[in-house]
Amino acid sequence: MPHAINGAVKIFYDNYGQGVPIVFLHPWSTNGYIWYYQLFPFARSHQVIAIDHRGHGRSDKPVSGYSIQEHASDVRAVLDAAGVQKAILVGNSIGGMIAMQFNLDYPDRVIGNLILSSGTAVGENMPKEAAAAFQSDYLGTFNALMEGAISAKSKRERPEILEVMKAHFAVASNFPKHVFDASMADPNGVFGWNIKSKLSAIRKPTLVVAGEEDQATPVGANQFLADNIPGAKLLVVKDVGHFHQLEKPLEFNATLQEFAAGLK
Amino acid sequence: MPHAINGAVKIFYDNYGQGVPIVFLHPWSTNGYIWYYQLFPFARSHQVIAIDHRGHGRSDKPVSGYSIQEHASDVRAVLDAAGVQKAILVGNSIGGMIAMQFNLDYPDRVIGNLILSSGTAVGENMPKEAAAAFQSDYLGTFNALMEGAISAKSKRERPEILEVMKAHFAVASNFPKHVFDASMADPNGVFGWNIKSKLSAIRKPTLVVAGEEDQATPVGANQFLADNIPGAKLLVVKDVGHFHQLEKPLEFNATLQEFAAGLK
Repeated sequence: MPHAINGAVKIFYDNYGQGVPIVFLHPWSTNGYIWYYQLFPFARSHQVIAIDHRGHGRSDKPVSGYSIQEHASDVRAVLDAAGVQKAILVGNSIGGMIAMQFNLDYPDRVIGNLILSSGTAVGENMPKEAAAAFQSDYLGTFNALMEGAISAKSKRERPEILEVMKAHFAVASNFPKHVFDASMADPNGVFGWNIKSKLSAIRKPTLVVAGEEDQATPVGANQFLADNIPGAKLLVVKDVGHFHQLEKPLEFNATLQEFAAGLK
Repeated sequence: MPHAINGAVKIFYDNYGQGVPIVFLHPWSTNGYIWYYQLFPFARSHQVIAIDHRGHGRSDKPVSGYSIQEHASDVRAVLDAAGVQKAILVGNSIGGMIAMQFNLDYPDRVIGNLILSSGTAVGENMPKEAAAAFQSDYLGTFNALMEGAISAKSKRERPEILEVMKAHFAVASNFPKHVFDASMADPNGVFGWNIKSKLSAIRKPTLVVAGEEDQATPVGANQFLADNIPGAKLLVVKDVGHFHQLEKPLEFNATLQEFAAGLK
């Protein structure tokens, strides 16, 4: 039952396999399960670690402390607990933000980054009504966001993805409302965190992957990352929304395999 | 990081939600991840528990002790640790065997059973060459079994299922070879365990679900269970093999929802 302790906060992680470490960082409101189709395939040739971020899944859920910087320090605590010096980071959405922050704070512990459907200062373009909508209809507002975050093809052919995304958010023992509130309120939380002027300080090989139909972190938000991280490349994927790893698992795995193989 | 201790063996489980408990029991060589598309949807209205069987995933992997009876006693230890008196059991393959044995050993702790793609004395019809084949080509022999355990449609449309099944078996930190060997050697292990003459002692409402294209535990093996468990019903599902919960997740969820709703 591996876990790390960062200050007083217990962080759950899964840990399988041997080889160059890959650390998987999930989106807001989900948990490590989202990497099912990556963990075991990659554990044949890598050490794979999937973290439940604080406030999520099996990790502790303190009343506050949801800045991206604090999430990044949890990743450091997990690497220390697992005896991992350096890793390839794979982060989706808030997981990508945590990976980028980790590059700023602990650059020597990064081999490379695959940033999947992410961004920075993503709250800037959020309509003012969004916060009010969450107050009046918490589940309904999130469900509508998820409808726009999954491709038409995925919704038709893999309707379970929308179902499980709605469910993670609705299950308080996975993602309680106080974590939502604290993340929204934190100036460095998921919507406020802004490293636009610091992206140039990320110096490890970085591939940014965007789903063409993702309305949550649209192609433009990912393009901005790729344009501002030195040497980063952007890959835009057809028929995919915010969750490439579930929407087209083997295509995503091939991309990650190729990226990992190209790192020294 | 919830876990139970049975004797000296630590058993990992996940535990989400509130309501009538449902306990999910995975197939041999896999782990609790296989229930991703069930756990969070059902955790909105039930307490859901997913166990990693001993020898699998995040649970301890002793050198021996892999009878179905020992696995069933681990389930009892988990229910005790989680403070659950009675539960609906959902078991796939060896998970179904463990559920049936649990009914024999702890009948007062069962509300009902959904047995998915399972059987008893499943080694009886195994060709003699099978054991030798595993000796000469451990991974290849298992991979061939998995090819026959997943429907044609699933292999075409969800190729990641075959990939993840092959991978679970190949990752020693998930399912080490000594667990395979000890399970094969145990007269009450996955292939030897035989409760043909005791099925009539299972008295809780039971639904047996079989995939029409499952060559691992074919329809006939599941028909035998339904014919011999008093009052049990059999549902045969088209275009599905051994892993209904991944091959057609929302159809499986609807079946489980209806079954659970019908239990007193």
